[in-house]
This record gives sequence, structure tokens and C-alpha cells, in this order.
Amino acid sequence: MGKVVTLGEIMLRLSTEQGTRIDSSERFVAHYGGGEANVAISLANYGHDAVFATKVPDNALGKAVKKHLQCYGVDTKQVLSGGPRLGTYYMETGSGERAASVIYDRAGSSFAEMDHLEWSLEELFQGIDIFHVSGITPALSKKWQKMTKQVIEAAKKAGCLISFDINYRGKLWTQQEASEVIHQLLPLVDICSAGKMDALYLLGIEKAPEAEEQPLIYYYQKMQEKFPNIQVFYSTKRTVHSASENELKGTLWMNHEYVESHVHRITPIVDRVGGGDAFAGGVLHGILSNMPPQEIIDFATAASALKHTIHGDCNQFSQEEVAQFLACGSGKIIR
Amino acid sequence: MGKVVTLGEIMLRLSTEQGTRIDSSERFVAHYGGGEANVAISLANYGHDAVFATKVPDNALGKAVKKHLQCYGVDTKQVLSGGPRLGTYYMETGSGERAASVIYDRAGSSFAEMDHLEWSLEELFQGIDIFHVSGITPALSKKWQKMTKQVIEAAKKAGCLISFDINYRGKLWTQQEASEVIHQLLPLVDICSAGKMDALYLLGIEKAPEAEEQPLIYYYQKMQEKFPNIQVFYSTKRTVHSASENELKGTLWMNHEYVESHVHRITPIVDRVGGGDAFAGGVLHGILSNMPPQEIIDFATAASALKHTIHGDCNQFSQEEVAQFLACGSGKIIR
Amino acid sequence: MGKVVTLGEIMLRLSTEQGTRIDSSERFVAHYGGGEANVAISLANYGHDAVFATKVPDNALGKAVKKHLQCYGVDTKQVLSGGPRLGTYYMETGSGERAASVIYDRAGSSFAEMDHLEWSLEELFQGIDIFHVSGITPALSKKWQKMTKQVIEAAKKAGCLISFDINYRGKLWTQQEASEVIHQLLPLVDICSAGKMDALYLLGIEKAPEAEEQPLIYYYQKMQEKFPNIQVFYSTKRTVHSASENELKGTLWMNHEYVESHVHRITPIVDRVGGGDAFAGGVLHGILSNMPPQEIIDFATAASALKHTIHGDCNQFSQEEVAQFLACGSGKIIR
Amino acid sequence: MGKVVTLGEIMLRLSTEQGTRIDSSERFVAHYGGGEANVAISLANYGHDAVFATKVPDNALGKAVKKHLQCYGVDTKQVLSGGPRLGTYYMETGSGERAASVIYDRAGSSFAEMDHLEWSLEELFQGIDIFHVSGITPALSKKWQKMTKQVIEAAKKAGCLISFDINYRGKLWTQQEASEVIHQLLPLVDICSAGKMDALYLLGIEKAPEAEEQPLIYYYQKMQEKFPNIQVFYSTKRTVHSASENELKGTLWMNHEYVESHVHRITPIVDRVGGGDAFAGGVLHGILSNMPPQEIIDFATAASALKHTIHGDCNQFSQEEVAQFLACGSGKIIR
Amino acid sequence: MGKVVTLGEIMLRLSTEQGTRIDSSERFVAHYGGGEANVAISLANYGHDAVFATKVPDNALGKAVKKHLQCYGVDTKQVLSGGPRLGTYYMETGSGERAASVIYDRAGSSFAEMDHLEWSLEELFQGIDIFHVSGITPALSKKWQKMTKQVIEAAKKAGCLISFDINYRGKLWTQQEASEVIHQLLPLVDICSAGKMDALYLLGIEKAPEAEEQPLIYYYQKMQEKFPNIQVFYSTKRTVHSASENELKGTLWMNHEYVESHVHRITPIVDRVGGGDAFAGGVLHGILSNMPPQEIIDFATAASALKHTIHGDCNQFSQEEVAQFLACGSGKIIR
Amino acid sequence: MGKVVTLGEIMLRLSTEQGTRIDSSERFVAHYGGGEANVAISLANYGHDAVFATKVPDNALGKAVKKHLQCYGVDTKQVLSGGPRLGTYYMETGSGERAASVIYDRAGSSFAEMDHLEWSLEELFQGIDIFHVSGITPALSKKWQKMTKQVIEAAKKAGCLISFDINYRGKLWTQQEASEVIHQLLPLVDICSAGKMDALYLLGIEKAPEAEEQPLIYYYQKMQEKFPNIQVFYSTKRTVHSASENELKGTLWMNHEYVESHVHRITPIVDRVGGGDAFAGGVLHGILSNMPPQEIIDFATAASALKHTIHGDCNQFSQEEVAQFLACGSGKIIR
Repeated sequence: MGKVVTLGEIMLRLSTEQGTRIDSSERFVAHYGGGEANVAISLANYGHDAVFATKVPDNALGKAVKKHLQCYGVDTKQVLSGGPRLGTYYMETGSGERAASVIYDRAGSSFAEMDHLEWSLEELFQGIDIFHVSGITPALSKKWQKMTKQVIEAAKKAGCLISFDINYRGKLWTQQEASEVIHQLLPLVDICSAGKMDALYLLGIEKAPEAEEQPLIYYYQKMQEKFPNIQVFYSTKRTVHSASENELKGTLWMNHEYVESHVHRITPIVDRVGGGDAFAGGVLHGILSNMPPQEIIDFATAASALKHTIHGDCNQFSQEEVAQFLACGSGKIIR
Repeated sequence: MGKVVTLGEIMLRLSTEQGTRIDSSERFVAHYGGGEANVAISLANYGHDAVFATKVPDNALGKAVKKHLQCYGVDTKQVLSGGPRLGTYYMETGSGERAASVIYDRAGSSFAEMDHLEWSLEELFQGIDIFHVSGITPALSKKWQKMTKQVIEAAKKAGCLISFDINYRGKLWTQQEASEVIHQLLPLVDICSAGKMDALYLLGIEKAPEAEEQPLIYYYQKMQEKFPNIQVFYSTKRTVHSASENELKGTLWMNHEYVESHVHRITPIVDRVGGGDAFAGGVLHGILSNMPPQEIIDFATAASALKHTIHGDCNQFSQEEVAQFLACGSGKIIR
Repeated sequence: MGKVVTLGEIMLRLSTEQGTRIDSSERFVAHYGGGEANVAISLANYGHDAVFATKVPDNALGKAVKKHLQCYGVDTKQVLSGGPRLGTYYMETGSGERAASVIYDRAGSSFAEMDHLEWSLEELFQGIDIFHVSGITPALSKKWQKMTKQVIEAAKKAGCLISFDINYRGKLWTQQEASEVIHQLLPLVDICSAGKMDALYLLGIEKAPEAEEQPLIYYYQKMQEKFPNIQVFYSTKRTVHSASENELKGTLWMNHEYVESHVHRITPIVDRVGGGDAFAGGVLHGILSNMPPQEIIDFATAASALKHTIHGDCNQFSQEEVAQFLACGSGKIIR
Repeated sequence: MGKVVTLGEIMLRLSTEQGTRIDSSERFVAHYGGGEANVAISLANYGHDAVFATKVPDNALGKAVKKHLQCYGVDTKQVLSGGPRLGTYYMETGSGERAASVIYDRAGSSFAEMDHLEWSLEELFQGIDIFHVSGITPALSKKWQKMTKQVIEAAKKAGCLISFDINYRGKLWTQQEASEVIHQLLPLVDICSAGKMDALYLLGIEKAPEAEEQPLIYYYQKMQEKFPNIQVFYSTKRTVHSASENELKGTLWMNHEYVESHVHRITPIVDRVGGGDAFAGGVLHGILSNMPPQEIIDFATAASALKHTIHGDCNQFSQEEVAQFLACGSGKIIR
Repeated sequence: MGKVVTLGEIMLRLSTEQGTRIDSSERFVAHYGGGEANVAISLANYGHDAVFATKVPDNALGKAVKKHLQCYGVDTKQVLSGGPRLGTYYMETGSGERAASVIYDRAGSSFAEMDHLEWSLEELFQGIDIFHVSGITPALSKKWQKMTKQVIEAAKKAGCLISFDINYRGKLWTQQEASEVIHQLLPLVDICSAGKMDALYLLGIEKAPEAEEQPLIYYYQKMQEKFPNIQVFYSTKRTVHSASENELKGTLWMNHEYVESHVHRITPIVDRVGGGDAFAGGVLHGILSNMPPQEIIDFATAASALKHTIHGDCNQFSQEEVAQFLACGSGKIIR
Repeated sequence: MGKVVTLGEIMLRLSTEQGTRIDSSERFVAHYGGGEANVAISLANYGHDAVFATKVPDNALGKAVKKHLQCYGVDTKQVLSGGPRLGTYYMETGSGERAASVIYDRAGSSFAEMDHLEWSLEELFQGIDIFHVSGITPALSKKWQKMTKQVIEAAKKAGCLISFDINYRGKLWTQQEASEVIHQLLPLVDICSAGKMDALYLLGIEKAPEAEEQPLIYYYQKMQEKFPNIQVFYSTKRTVHSASENELKGTLWMNHEYVESHVHRITPIVDRVGGGDAFAGGVLHGILSNMPPQEIIDFATAASALKHTIHGDCNQFSQEEVAQFLACGSGKIIR
């Protein structure tokens, strides 16, 4: 099994129950999550050694974060304690045509306020196979734009494969700002989650010609031509019928080969937060396990589909459970 | 913004949770609502001055009604206190093929037992743009048949537009009784919620010829011919696939023009009680805001669709939220 | 109305709430149920005298079983008290593509550990019209293989019709073991729940010829040829789109006639446990009430469809409610 | 074991959860109860044949009443179905210094509206040892004042002992009205729950002389002198420290002997509704079981104390559990 | 009835349920409150015109604040909308010996970040009888130290009585800082909540001589000597037996007279947050209603005691309910 | 910090909510716990390396156990997977005078069914300071009587201090059986939880003379004379006022010195399960931290008192939190 470090912010999500608005909710359900943390949990579930590096305040919410991670077997030795607060956000759970609605209250968090890398990077990356980080981390501050590059360089130097999930969030930075920073990072990256939108709006790839029959392959090719160091690109194609029903297909470009999963019809959606992270976790697991591309994309998409059926940000399924789901198909009780 | 008075009964609804029958339910969810109250709340949400006139008992349930209305900014100065009890009903929430099931326990309520109009009608309607009442109010008692006419006449005299929602309930009165009363009221009305069923069974309109391509337009025309004082007719067309899935289309006849909304597929239905009132509230908002007909019907139907995704009888969305929903379409998280 | 005895094990089911896994669930919902108990409750709901015979431990869980049965009017005089424990199982409720997942903890229960028939069989079957038992009972132990035969013989002798639901469970015994025992029992049986899978894998019927247009009729015919004593065969055909959406059709072979219900689209499925028992209960009710075959199958399938919309193992609908559901169709509020 | 009939109204209680007011409660907990129903359940729990006679509406709330009674093994064959509604009341659960607060909504119920005895009294009382009714029943209407007398006479004629619990409720009738009716009933009574307040304000007993050391014995003696037909008087003495803490002592006058229980300190009070009925049930059980007076009062008071620790109106403890509680004392886990 | 303005911050409190720690809580109960907001609600409950002035973010949490206030009839026209966020805090509810534990996350709130008074002070104070503010407001920032003085001066100029609750919070500022600011404010104040601790540590009063029999009177006298403009001083004396049991006594110095309430034994404490604000609200109500001092202190302390029995920050009792509580005493059901 | 191994069974506890009986509970709260597991969690909370060795089934309940332990940072590498089932028990939570009531369903568990020590004992005890086990483990089976001795001998040989908690359970074995086994184990033990009852009924110490002023010291002395290898004895003295109120005092005999804590009045008791384990965990922490005896007993008793205020079997407080509780006393909010 592999050894992985992921690094990023983890937040407290406060959600309403189905059919209740934030402004009249008498209680909020609490979940802890963040892109990189969710990937670490997926990988720990699959049996890998997963370390999550972050910084949380020295209070009960910081402890809650550690308990959450430890519960899934993620190593929390690199979870720093200190700083002003834990980032939070409020989510009004969507239903049918009504989309979920979010209030961010993440500014000034212990992680976002960091101004230097407080970990011993040497110790952090010793013996690590993959280092994973997302585009949310450099989006948090000017400091983090620099620090993300530093930490990736240190990981690279220590011999890690670099996994990067672009994960562009328009609420955190502009396309231009993101584009600049990402262009600095991608030459260091080996595995990259990026899709058509990223290609067009952040990486400056030209629109596929109208005649192109498989535009996604076109974008993957162009991205790889631009960043030949990246061996793996992957993304999901999500068709949103409503907040309660989506279709999801996984796609992967690997070793110059394109594969895709079958389409999962996900209805009802119990909780779609973290669906992308479950997908990324599945891809990294496939790579660490030397699966062939088709197997990787089937596994990763199945993991993401399962995540949608469970409350909380993180994938809670083991390798065996995802495999059994792939084997058995949809919805039957075994008894 | 406009000034509106609505008047009617408000009841306590006691519902089971999904998948639980009334006869084995250990608890009931409490919601307060009534057609006219729900319309007042919609209009207050959209920024209008909304006054709701009713009578509730002088006890904690009466207070609960006031708190519920005040919470949304509805003016409760015209909520009278006294009388024997608050009308209640029990609802076994439907699911899939199983329809909701209702036990009414509304007889003898403080409102239904009123035998004269206890409000100062002059004060009530001073400066008011629209007075809204539904066909449930005259259905409550012989007294209320007379009093509904009196109150409409007073509003008319004070210069209000009269809005009337036929809202026929077979459990409260017979078609014949309803028909007689409604024929007395409609000559006073300016805006009327009425559809094909009302035309056929209450207003004595003949069935549209088989060849008629748009029978709904036919009915609207015929109704207006009969009551030329009414400038606006509106109704929804609901296709019930199951208790959990409906399709909803809004239709409007205004200034001799027919418009309709696109069809909303509502699944899952969280709570359909008050869907019609949210629609009526949207239409009145459109009229008060001088929207063109197509905009009115789009807004009103969207408001009704949103209502179905939330627990409780009343629309809880602001004008901005309904507009954003119309602009963005179904089910996407914005982040 | 008829008099019926059913006999079998009843267990405590501990379920998670939707979207929560067993390994992170802070609470479990408790339901009591078992095939034969569920049939007894259905029949009591329809107005028949229903007696359930079982053995439960002499503790609060045993009392809970009795309260559960009594609540629906089932006669519990034949519920024995004693033995080591109540069988339990844990259910992770399925959702969408994710199937329900079950952990059985039923070994060593008071019922399964019985080594002789502790009831007075004479008293048990006095004046009884139908005795119903399922294939789960002989699957519990070698002793129960024998005791099931004994109890059926005693019922037969007392003049009861024998109703048997094959209900094969691969987790309890092998096909071969089941086949042998069932071949001993079926010559005593009058009414049998069995479908294509039972015909092929347990009763040794050959596969229907490819050209056969209605293979189910073929299997019913072949089964009856083999067991001419059985006058009624019935089963459901379930199409599993997901854990949240199934289609269900009931089929019946009776007096050499084949009838089937229309297809019920069940979505969302609130709780499918006991769906088959509700179907069996409907069939037995139809027989006791001398309904014609088409009416029986419509009633039984409707009862099963309704069961899926309610939490808990047992059908909670009266004869009138099932009939009204058949008359009114899907999902409309009556008000 | 004995055979008992109790007769009276049963209502739906809708309670808030601790620390929540009625006017801001989003849900209500549902309990079904009434003095005579609660006594019937107590006696069924102790192994007696208990029949409860009442009238409930023919709807799901009426069914809920039957399910509630059947669950405890009470015979519901004499529960009539029909009439307008089930009486209800709302309870704001008290806590500490804040008393519980109640809104009655019981007028016009199916039971209260009865104008003649719809049961076959001969059948009702055949083979019955004790008939129990409370002073709430004649308080419901003028008709019920007469009908209560009729039903008691019929029971007396059929050879039943008559048990009457005065249970004066100032919200239902005046002291004078109550006094008159009770004076008509008591000459027919054998067992009577009445205490000092009843003696003084309803039965016209003069205040005990100041010097009297045991005024309660005085009142019991005087009451019995007045109604020599009554062999047993009993009541509890409750010291209310707060809504969460009471002290409770049971007292009994039987065969000219006075006995009392030790004082139970009840804290926290989980639910005190039905505490008196559990006490009455215990006394009747003692009489039916030929216990000596001291044993009766210890058992009945213990049953009442246990009732206070459980949600719901009725005693849920078996004879063995009450006995064990008496033997073991307060609050120890046995493991 | 009077007209009152209160001004200050209002926050979202996120609490655990009893017996659950923050770091393992799956959900948080949401309450909105703040000292001045709670006082406004109390006064609105008692029938006064109460205006609350604050600033909340323009999102669903800001709307929730308005709904909360409106629900109790508080005027929200002076609730400004904008700024970065709503202050929040997490509370681990205490129980028995274990004290409640709090994590503040209030920095950077829309209110605390204000740098000038955005209200029209003239409009704000027109026709107002009392302006109430607490020492928490100047503790929020250097700006608010100045702005608090400005706003008090404007109120004074407009003819309001000034009510000030010292409410010292060591987590927000030092004693020295507080002392300086409070010395600037108190010369403008008419009614002041301050006790022995405030006298000693903030107002520089010397410790009462050992021989002093009634040291509290001493401190009130000394404080008034120092600030002769203040006519009313009041405070509570709380004896903390545990987080679940307190004793509470109210004391008042008014017109050179000292009065105190009887001692309330509060057990169990449901929620003590806002207990002091309920007391202040009661005192201001007494002053507005021209009650004599003893009546004021009895009423205010009773209101505070009732507050402790209800979840949420604000007093939810009407004038009549507090008066009835005073009249009836502890814990009896009226029925 | 120290390194500790504890070994024993861990079970699923299924509890009712306050005021609900097992036989009418619609849901059960799930907690995982066992004496040795609880001690391991306490020690992990205090910062020690804690390993828990057990065997759980290879299913979701087994996973739940691991997640529970990992969440608190307990090392689960020695948690074996396999065997038939997880032991469970049902608990009816007590309240006031009504004691908790328990149904054990622990027979045949994966741990109890073990017939040889499946761990590598060498690896298990390498570098470990203390090995802790309780008298429940040998009580589970004849095999475990032998295996407990074996595992203690292996730990001793590896240089561990041996900690043994007698924890006699009459439901598992007789006093005679327990006495024999414990006499074999105690000569190997260094630290022992044993009190007066153990001395008298299991260790054959004679009753203290009537004149003895401090009988507990007498028993500690006598026990140590008998087992001079044991340096530390400790136990709690619990006065049970009710299921909701206990008094608790900790006592310790160490280095021939007797110390005791002050008395904690614990009311309300939220959950007393695991109170003794929290005490034992505190004592072991004190020994590992070289605290003086008085500090040990104060810390351990405080930890136990805190445990009673929280749901769940295990102590959830850190070293700092227990210390702060000792410093601050009962029930005050810090803000």
C-alpha cells in the first residue's frame, strides 16, 4: 500500500435538514471536511498510510477535526494547533429544483492566516509516495500562493509524485489570478484533476473545433501537450437534473489513453459535498495500486457515486465495498 | 411597494414525518397556515406591507399564530383574540403512490364561530391597494357567507382591488351552495383564481367543444365574458405522478391575453401544502409591481415550485431569491 | 372473517437512518418483524382473527414483541416466553444505487433453539381456517426441519388449509438442503408462494423453452403438475431500478387461471422490508374473503406497494384503505 | 386474576419537549390517555382482564387510541367508533419552578357528545368483578351526569364492585354541581378515591379540629360515616417542591384501618400526568389480589412513583417490576 | 406603555445537547441572542414598543436575526444590513458539576467592524423613553468605545433615560480599559446594572468594612455617591451549586431604598444564557410601569428565574405570565 | 508519557432515551465500550500511547469499534477481526428512583469465543509500561480464565507493571469461581482496583472489627498483607441517592499511605456507565505521571465525576480539562 500526504484547509460545515431554510433552522448538522482532508480519508479507507497536514485552532473545534480524521485512521501528527479560528460555512441543503445555498464564513481561519510553512518539510515528506494538494489552498491568500509552490517543490525534491486538483472556486479568486498561479504550479505536477472548463478558462487552451467528435479527448491532449510532465488527467462530467438527481460519468486520460466510466444515475442525492474528492481519492488509489486505466476510472466513479448516498464530506467506503458495488450493480439487498 | 390586507382562518397543521402513519406517530410536526395568511406572508416576503386579519383564541396557540406571522413581518394588529379554539388538522404525509391523508378538526374555531365583523372596516382598509380573500372563508358558516360579502363591499368602497381565490373544498360545502355564494361575490371581484373545474362546476360555463385546441383559453374567455369586471384570471395545472412527484404549470389570463409558464417537474415534493397560495401570492406581487403578464406567470409559478421544496405552509423566499431561481435553473450549488 | 395461525421467528431489526452507515450511526431505529408475524398482522388489520405462535425471551425485548403484535390486534396467547435471546439484525438502509446492507445476529435465538414443539397443537389449531408458515422456519435448524413438518401435519389434521411461503434465504441453508426439505413439505400444502427462481433451483423444474411466450405461466403449470395438491401459487416480479425505486407486479395462479396486477412504480421506497409478507397477507385475505383471482392479485399487490411507503416490517393498512388506494390511484390528497 | 371494566373519555395529549414553550414548539409529542383508560392499562399490565369502554371518532386518531390500548393488552371490543372528534389538549411541560401549562381542546368530543349509553350494559358487565369510573365522566355534560349514574347502577346490578375516583376538575364543573352529582353516586360506591380536599369542598365534611393529630384519618372516618357503603378510601399526599421535584405518600383507609406508604422523593419528574391513575390502578390490583392494606398502599404508591419516571399517561410496569422496585429501593443498576 | 431603543451586537449561539461535548457533537442547536436584543424582546413581550438597533450581514443568518426579533414583535427597522459576518459562539452545555464551556468566534463581525454610527440618531431616538445599552458594546473595539459615548449622548439629548448594564467580560477587555471607559459613560446614565464586583474592580469603590452587616447596600450607596445622576442600581446575587442548580436573588437600589426579592432555587437549569438580560428587562418594565421598588424586584427576579427554565437567550414570558408565576408559586399544574 | 496495553471485550450498548422503556422504544442510542477499552481511551486522552487488544467480528459493527477507538487516538493494530458476533446489551436508562435496567446479549461473542491467544505476545508487550486487564475477562469462559493468566505472565515477563481491576460481575460467574481465579492472578499484580466488598467476598479478608474507625484502611492493609506484591489499591465509595443523584468519593492505598478525594455530588447523572473505568484511567495516569497519592486520587475522582456528565462509556476529557475542573470547582461558565 502507498504512503500519501495531503495538505489543505479543513472546515466545519453547518447544514440544515432537508426542507428547512437556514433562516428558520433550529439546528444545524455538523460535518468537517475539506478537499485534501477528504482525499486523505478515502485513501486511509483503502488501506494506504495517509497523513493530513493542516492547522486548526487550539480549541474543541480543532479537537473535533482531529477526532474526525483519526476515526478514519488518518495520521494527524501533522495537524498543527493554533491560530484564531476554524473556517466554517452554512449550507441550506438543496432539494429538487431548489439548489443548495451556501454562506461562507471562512475568512481569517487558522490555516488561511498562516504566513510560513510551520511543518518540517523534510520530516513531512520522508518516504511519501504521493503529495496531493488542491487549487483551493493557493486561493486562500497571497502567502498561500507562494507557500503552495514551496511545499510542492519540497515534496518533489523528496521524491513524491505531485497530485494537484485545480478545483477552481470563483468565490475565492479571479480566473486571471488563478490562471497565473496554476501556470506556475503545473510544471511541477504529475497527476492533475482538470476538465474542459479548466482547459478553456484557466489554462488558455483554445476551444475545440466544432467538428471535433470527442472534445474532451481534445482538451486532455492539449493540456498534456502544454504540460508534458503531467501523466494523468481526470475529471467528472456531471449532468444536473436537479439538486436531487444528477448523472455522473468519470473520465481519465492516462498514458495517452482515454477511458470513461459508465454513467451513474444518482437519485436521490443524499449529500453531494465531497463527491469530487471521493473521485480524486479513487483515482489516486488506482494509481497507487497499479490498476489499469479502465479499472481506475470505474473504481473512482463508483466511489464518487457511493459518496453521494451518504451524509458527510468524506467517502466512507472501503476498497472491498466499492469493488462489491461495481460487481453487484444498483440497489439490491443481499440476504 | 403595495399595501395588502388578507382575511381568513388560520389553522394548526399537525403532520407526521415521512413514512409514519397518524395512528402510530409518536410526535407531530406543527405548522400554522391558511390560504389568506399564506398569501400575506408571501407578499411581506416580497417587501409589501401585508396585514392579516383573523381571530384566534386567547391562549398559547393564538400566540403561536401571531409569532408565526410576525416572524415574516406580517402586520398582526388585526388579529383578534378570543373565541373557543384554534382550528386544527392532522396530516399523514404522503409518499410515492400513497397520497397524503387528512383528518380535519376545524369545527367550532374562534374564526368560524364569528357572527359579526369585529374589525373596524374603515381602519382595516385605509390606504390599502388590494384585499384578498378565498372561497374557504364563506364556506365556513352561513354567517361567513354574508360577512364575506360585507367585507368585500367595504374594501371595494375603500378603493381596494378585490382579489378572490375560489379554492373550492368539497368537505366544507356543496357545489350548489358554493356556486350561489360565488355568483354573488364575483361581480365585486377584480382578480380571480379560477380554473377549468371552477368554470365547469361552479360558474356554469359549458364544456369546451371537443375541437377546441386550447380549452383553458376558452374557459378563461367565457368566465370573463360572464364577469367582465374581472381583469385577471389565473390557475395552475398540476399533473400528479405521485405524492412525491408532480408537474406544475402556471397559467394567466390578463388584459385578454393568455400566458403560461414552463412546466416545473417537482420531485421530491417536500411539502405541497400552500403551493397554490404561493402561486396566488406571486400573481398579486406581479400585479402590484406592474410586471408584464409573462413575467408574472413565470414568477408566480417559480414561487410555487420553490414552496414545494420546503416544509411549512408558506412561501419563505424573497423576491430576489425567486428571481435568481428563475435565472439559474434547477439544482446547482453556487460556490 | 377467517381464523388464521401463523408460526415462525420474529426478530428485532436495528436500522440506520437514511444516508448513515452502520459504523458511524449514533442510533438505531427499532422494528420488530418476521415473515409469519407480518402476515398475521396484515390479516388482523383486515379483520381476521390472527394468532401468531413463536417463542421469545422472558425479558423486555420479548415484551416488546408482544406489545408490537397486540397493538395490531394479533392474538399473543401462543407466544411462548423463555430461551436465551431474541434474534436481531442490523440494516444499513439503502439509497439510490447503494443497496441496503445487513448484518445478521440471529444465531442462538429462543425460537431457533427450540428442540420440540412446546405448544398444545390441538389447542393451537382448533377452529382455524388457515395455517401459514414460511421456508425460513425449517431453515433455522435441523430440529426445525422436522418440527415444521410436524406442525404442518397437525394443522392439516385439524382441518386447516396449509399456506407455505418458500422464501429461500441463501444465508441460512444451501439450495440442496432447502430442496430436500421443501419437497417433503409441499405435498402437504394448499397455497404456495413460489416463483420462477424457486421452480428452477429448488423444485427441479426445467427451464422454460425459449419460445415460451409466458414463461411464468409455464412455471406455475409445471409446479402444479408436480404438486397437484397445491391450488394456489403466487409471487411478485420486482424490477430493481435502485434501492429507492422499484417496479412491482403481482402474479397469481389459481384454479388453473393466471392473473397479474398492473405494475406499481414505487419511488421513493421508504422501507421495503416486509413487502413480500404484505403481498402474502393480501393473497390470504383474498382467499379467506372469496375474492375472484383478479381482485385478489390487485388487492395483494396494492397492499405490498403501500407497505413500501411506510417504515416498519408490517403492513399497517386496513382492508378499506387498500381498497380506497386501488380505487383512487396514486398520490392525490383528498380534501 | 380479576375482570375489570373501566369507562370514560380518552384524549390525545400534545406535549412540548422540556424547555420549549407551546407558542414556539416545532413539534408536539403525542400521548393518548384518560383516567379510566390509564387504570385499565395498569390492571392489564398486572395480568387482569381489563376492558375499556369509550367512544372515539372513526378516523386515524380513533385507531391510534385502539392501538395504544391493545398494545398493553386492554380489551377494546367496547370501544365505540363514531361521533365528531377526539378530545385533545396541549401541555407545555413544566420544569423547576415553572409549572406545566395546559390548553384544553376537549369540547365536542365523540365521548362527551354521547346522549345515551350505546353499549349493551348486560354484555358489558357480564362476569366483571370491578367497574371503575371517575368524576371526570359526569363532569363532561348534563347527559353524562345521568348516564354515569345509569351505568353504575347497571354494574352494581350485575354484581360488580363499584370503584369511583372523585378526581375533581375545576375547569369542567363548579364545586356545587360536582357536589350534587357526587352525592347521588357515592351511595352506590364500594371503593373511593377521595382525600381531604374532597371531604371539605365536595362532601361537606367539617374541617378537622385544630387539635386533631391525624386529620387525614379524621376525614376518612367522617367520609365513611357519611357513606358507610364505601369500604375503601384512598388518596395521595403530594408535596410539590417544583415541577421537577415532588414528594409523594400514599394513604389508605380500609376495614376501618389507616395505612400509609413511605414517602417517595420523585426527582426529576419525567412526566407526572397519570400519576394518580397509576395509584388507583395499584389499589384496585391490591384489592383484586387480596393483599393486606399495608401491602396495597406500598404497591400502589410505588407504582405511582414509577409512573412519574416515564413519558406517557399510563403505568408501564408489570406486577413483578413494581414488586422488585419495592424490594430493591432507589436507583441501583443490577448487573 | 413605553418606547424603548436598545442597541448592541446579536450573535448566533451554537449549542450542544445535554451530555454531549462540542468535539463529538453531530449537530448544534441554533439560538440568536445578545444582551441588548434580549432586553428588547423582554420589553416587547410586556407590551412596550421596543426597537433594536444593530448591524447584521446581508445573508440568511442576517435574515434569521430579523425573523427572530420580529417573531417577538421587536421593531427591526433599525437593523442594518451589511458587513462581513455574524458573530458566533459555540456552547458546550454544562451539567451538574461540569460547567458550560464556550468557544467564541465573534471577531470581525458586521457590528464589531462598524466605524461610524450608520443610523440617523435623530430618527432613532424620536419619542423614545429609555435607551438601553450594555458594557459589551464599548468592549468590542476602540471605535465602539467612542461610538457608545456618542450614541448615549444623542439619546440623552433626545430626552431618553439612559439605561446601562455594565456586564463586564474579561475575554473582551481588561479591567483597566473597562474602568476608564465606564467612568466616561456613567455620568450620562440614569439606570445602572452594577453589583459588588463592579463596584470593587471597575468603579474603584473600597471594600466594605468587615463590620458592615449589609455590604451590598454599602456598595450601592457608595456607587450612587460617586454617580449621583444614577437613580437606580440593580444586580442579582447568584449562588452556583452546580451548572444544573443555582439560587438567585434580585436586589435593587432605588430612591435611596434597598429592596430584594426572595431566593429562587432554580433546578434543573434548562438554559441560563440570558438570565441577566431577563432580569434587566424586568427592571426596565417595572420602571416604565411605575411599579414600586419591591414589586419591580420581585417581577424582574421572577422573569429571570422563568428564563432559566426555557431554551434560548430571551425571556419568552408575557407580563401576565410573570405575574401569575409570582402569584401561584412553584411548579403546580392548573387544570 | 507512558505506553499502555489494555485487553478485554468491547460491546455495543443500545440505550433508551430518558423516560422511555425498552419495550416501547422506537430507537436505541448506540455506544461502544468495555472496561479495558474505556481505560485505554482515558489514557490516550491524557497523552499516553494506548493500545487496546480485543477481537471483533469482521463486519460493520467491528469497524464501528475501530472507528470509536481511533477517534480517541487509541492504537487499534491489536484489534483482531473475525469470529461470530459483537457482544451487545440493552440499557433502559434509569431516572430518579427507577434504576437502570439491563438485558445482556453478550454470549457467543468473537472475544468470548476465543480459545487461544491470537496475538503475538512478544510484539504486544514490547516497550510497554503497564498492562491493564479486568476481572470481566477471565469471567467470560473457562478458556479465558487460563488465557488471562497467560497474558498477564507474558506481560510481566516483558517487564510491564500489571494493573488489575477486579470488577466482579455476579451475572458472569459465582463468587467462588471468581475467588479461585483471582487468587491465582493477584500474585502477579502490581496495581489493583479492589474495595471492601472484594476484600470480604472474594479475597477472604475477615470483617473489620466493629471498633475500627476507618474500616477501608483496614481492608486495604489486610489485602496488601495478603498480596504484598501489590503496591497500589484503589476504589470508589458511591452513595446512591437515586439513579439521577450519586455521591462519589475516591480512595487510594499507595506506599502504605491512605488518601481520599473530597465527595463529588453528581446530579443529574447523565450516564454512569464507565464511571469506574474513568476512575481507573485516572489512577493509572497518575502513576505514569509520578503524581503524589493525593493528587492521583483527586485527579482520578474528578475524571470519574466528569464522565458521569457525558453520554457514552468513555471519559472524553483531556488532562488539562480534568485539571481545570479540579481548580475551578463546580458549574461556572467562563466567559
